[in-house]
Amino acid sequence: MKLVIVGGSAAGMAAAAKAKRSGADEVVVFEKSRFVSYAPCGIPYYFEGLVKSIDELVYYTAEFFRENRRIDVRTEHVVREIDTSSKKVHALDKHGNEVVEEYDKLVLATGGEAVKPGIDGIELEGIHTIRTLEDGESLYMDARNAHNIAIVGGGYVGIEMAEAFIKMGKRIHLFEMMPHIMPAMDDEVVVPVEEEMRKAGINLHLGEKVEAFDGDGRVKKVITQNDSYEIDAVLLSIGVKPNVDFARRIGLKLGKYGIDVNEYMQTSMEDIYAAGDNVEVYNLITKKKDYIPLAPAANKMGRIAGENAAAGNRKTFPGVVGTSITKFMDMHIGKTGLSLKQAMENGFDAVAVDIQHGTRSHYYPGGKKINIRLVADRDSHAILGGQITGEEGVVGRINTLAAAITKGMKVEELSMLDMAYAPPFAPVWDGLIVAANVIQKKLA
Amino acid sequence: MKLVIVGGSAAGMAAAAKAKRSGADEVVVFEKSRFVSYAPCGIPYYFEGLVKSIDELVYYTAEFFRENRRIDVRTEHVVREIDTSSKKVHALDKHGNEVVEEYDKLVLATGGEAVKPGIDGIELEGIHTIRTLEDGESLYMDARNAHNIAIVGGGYVGIEMAEAFIKMGKRIHLFEMMPHIMPAMDDEVVVPVEEEMRKAGINLHLGEKVEAFDGDGRVKKVITQNDSYEIDAVLLSIGVKPNVDFARRIGLKLGKYGIDVNEYMQTSMEDIYAAGDNVEVYNLITKKKDYIPLAPAANKMGRIAGENAAAGNRKTFPGVVGTSITKFMDMHIGKTGLSLKQAMENGFDAVAVDIQHGTRSHYYPGGKKINIRLVADRDSHAILGGQITGEEGVVGRINTLAAAITKGMKVEELSMLDMAYAPPFAPVWDGLIVAANVIQKKLA
Repeated sequence: MKLVIVGGSAAGMAAAAKAKRSGADEVVVFEKSRFVSYAPCGIPYYFEGLVKSIDELVYYTAEFFRENRRIDVRTEHVVREIDTSSKKVHALDKHGNEVVEEYDKLVLATGGEAVKPGIDGIELEGIHTIRTLEDGESLYMDARNAHNIAIVGGGYVGIEMAEAFIKMGKRIHLFEMMPHIMPAMDDEVVVPVEEEMRKAGINLHLGEKVEAFDGDGRVKKVITQNDSYEIDAVLLSIGVKPNVDFARRIGLKLGKYGIDVNEYMQTSMEDIYAAGDNVEVYNLITKKKDYIPLAPAANKMGRIAGENAAAGNRKTFPGVVGTSITKFMDMHIGKTGLSLKQAMENGFDAVAVDIQHGTRSHYYPGGKKINIRLVADRDSHAILGGQITGEEGVVGRINTLAAAITKGMKVEELSMLDMAYAPPFAPVWDGLIVAANVIQKKLA
Repeated sequence: MKLVIVGGSAAGMAAAAKAKRSGADEVVVFEKSRFVSYAPCGIPYYFEGLVKSIDELVYYTAEFFRENRRIDVRTEHVVREIDTSSKKVHALDKHGNEVVEEYDKLVLATGGEAVKPGIDGIELEGIHTIRTLEDGESLYMDARNAHNIAIVGGGYVGIEMAEAFIKMGKRIHLFEMMPHIMPAMDDEVVVPVEEEMRKAGINLHLGEKVEAFDGDGRVKKVITQNDSYEIDAVLLSIGVKPNVDFARRIGLKLGKYGIDVNEYMQTSMEDIYAAGDNVEVYNLITKKKDYIPLAPAANKMGRIAGENAAAGNRKTFPGVVGTSITKFMDMHIGKTGLSLKQAMENGFDAVAVDIQHGTRSHYYPGGKKINIRLVADRDSHAILGGQITGEEGVVGRINTLAAAITKGMKVEELSMLDMAYAPPFAPVWDGLIVAANVIQKKLA
C-alpha cells in the first residue's frame, strides 16, 4: 500500500503519521515550502519576541519524519499534475527536475489560502498574507523597518497580529469593512474587545472598506471609501479559502465551501481522500456543511484520512461545532457553536442572554469578571452556542460548552451540571450555570 | 404558603431565596449559628491571610435576606422539635426563649457534620473540626499560638488546611490511615501530590492510624499505632456525615447514606423536602445513591427544594457525577466521575490511561505539564472519569469531562471533540484528546 499526500502542513502530516502506523507500506509527502508540520498560529508570538526563532514553530522536521517515522517527505516540491487514470503524481523539485510517484491511495491536504481582494495595487510589494512560515518571515522583514502598518481584516489573525505589532512598537491602522471586528461573533461580545484595542492605541476603522493600495513599486497608501492613509506595510487578513485547484482539475465533487468528503474523509473518487482547510466540514449544530478552517479539525481530519486510506474505511470524522479562542492583550475571547446571528441565519428560533460573573469566589484574591453570552434554541432548549470574554477562565468554560453542545445538552441540564468548585477556581455558582438559569426565564 | 427551613447554610438559603421568588408568602429560616449563607470552603484562605476577615466569607447577611428578600432569618436559633402532625417547628432563641412556627411546607437543610472518631482523648480542648465559620474562628485562635499542628485525615480539607498552616509558619504532621491521601482518587494521581506536600515540609504519615489523643485538659499528644507526637492543636478532617437527627426522629425514610429524597428533593413525607449534605444523591454514572457532600450540589438541591416546596413539584435535580477540585500550593488537583478503583468497586470493567501533556503550544512560554488520567468502560467505551493534576488548565478540562460524562460521551467522541485551540491556551492536540486516543488502543 503506497500513499501519496499532497501538502505537508497539519492535515497532511497527521495523515502521513497515522497512515504509517496503520500499516501503509510507503508514504510520500510533497510539500511546496521548506517546512512541514508547522504551526502558522505561532507566527504572532514570533513577531512579539515570545518565540525566538521561526524554526521553533515546527513540530517535527522533514528529517525527523524521514528518519524516525520512515515517511518520505519531499519539501520544496511543487505538485504539477495528478493523473487519476494512471494514479500518478507529477512534481517539480527545487531544481526544476520532474519527480513522478505512483499511488494506491492519495490524500489531498492542499490547505487553504489567504483571500486577496481584486483591488488596485494589490500586487504592490509590502502587501502580505500569512499562511506559511515563509509568509511570516517575509512579513517580519518588512514589519521590522515599518513605522505604520495597516491590517486589513479584523478576524483572529488580524487581532493577534495587531497585538504583536503593538508590542513591536508599531503604529497600527486596522480596517474592518463590517461594522465590527470578528464578524462571526455577536456585536455585544466584540464591542468590549474593540475598546481594548483602542485603549492599546490601535486605530480601528470599522465599517471602512479598503478600496485600493497605492505606491511606487512598494505600497505607500491604503485608500478606503473615506480617506487615505500613509503606511509602510500591509497585512491582509480578510479570510481563508480552500485550495481546490487540483480537486477541480481532476474532477472531484466540490461542495459550496470546499472539497466534498464523506465521514471517512473520502472524496467522490474512491482512492482519493482529502483533509484540512481544503474541505468543507459538517456542522453538528446546523447539520449542514460549513467552512471553519482551524488547525485542530485539520489535524483530526488528517488523522482519519490517513488511517482510512491505509487500512480501509474504519474511522469517521463526526464534524465540528466551531470552537475557537484567541486573545487581545489580557482579554481572552472564546466562542463555541453559533452566535445569535449565526443561529438566526440558520433558521433557529434562538435566544441569547448576557451575564457578567466572577471567575473565583468573591473573597478569593485575583478573580476577574467574565462576560458570558449563551445562545439557546427556543423549541428544544438545546444550547446552540457560547461566547465568553475575560482575563481568565475563558478557555475551560468554552470547552465545557463545546462538550455540552456536541452532546445536545439542554439549558436545564447545564444549570444542573456538576462543575468543579473551589474558591481559587470558580464561584460556587459557576457563570455557566448562572447563564443557564437566566436563559431559562427567557425560554419560559 | 408558609415555608419553614431548618438550616441556613448553602442549601437552606438557596431554598429560601428561590422559594420566595417562586411565590412563597412567608419564609422562615432557623439557623443555629451566627451566620447564614456562608462559605466554609473559604476558611483555609482566611488562615493564610488571603481573606482578611471571616465576615468576608458570608455571601449575604441575615439582615440582607430580611430587608432585601423579605425572608425571616432567625440566626442563633436551635431547633428542638419538629411536630409533623401539627406541622410546627419548635426552636430556642439565644436567650433560651421558645419560638414556635407553623409550616405548610418544611425544608430540612441540616447539612453534614464532621466525623469524630470515638477514641481516647477526643474531647480534649484544642481538637477541632471545621464545618462552620465559628469552627474556623475557634481553630484559628488555637492555631495562631500553636507551633506543631496535627491534621488527621488527608482529604480536601486536610490538604487545603495543610497549605494554610504552612503559610502561617506552622510545623505540620498529617496523618492518613489509608496508604495514600485523597482515598477516592487513584494512587497514581495522588503520589505526586504527596511529593509536593513533603517538599513543602509537611510530615506526612501515610497508613498511620491515630488511636488516641493525650493531654491534661488540653491536647498535647497524638498517639498512633507507630509512635506518639507532641502537638499543640489538632484538626480532625476525616470526613463528613449527614446530620439526620431530626429526619430520624420524625420518621423520614433514610437511605444508606442520608435522607432519602426523590428527584423533586421531597422526602418520604409529602410536605417535607430536604437538601444539602444531609441527603444522599443520585450518582449519574453508577446509577446508585451516593454521598458526595459538596457545596455546588447543596446549592442546586436547595434551589430545587425551595422552588418545589413553594410552587409544587416542577423542577428536578438529576444527580451528580462527583466533580471536585482543590490545590496544594501550585498544584491543582481535579477529579470528575469515577476513579479506576471506584469504577471497579461499582462493577465496571474499567480501564485507565495516564498521559502527561503540555497546557500550551510547545513554543509558547509559560506552559506547564499536566497529568491526565482517563477512565473508561470497556463495554460501552463511555468515559467514566478523569483525574488531572498540574499547575494550570486543570479546572477547565475537568469541567469539560464533567459535561462529557454527564451526557454519556464515549472516548471515540472525546477524541474528536472540537476543543478550543490557540497557542497561549492549549496545544493543537489537547491533552484530553490525546488521552482519548491512547485509551482507544487499550479498548481495542
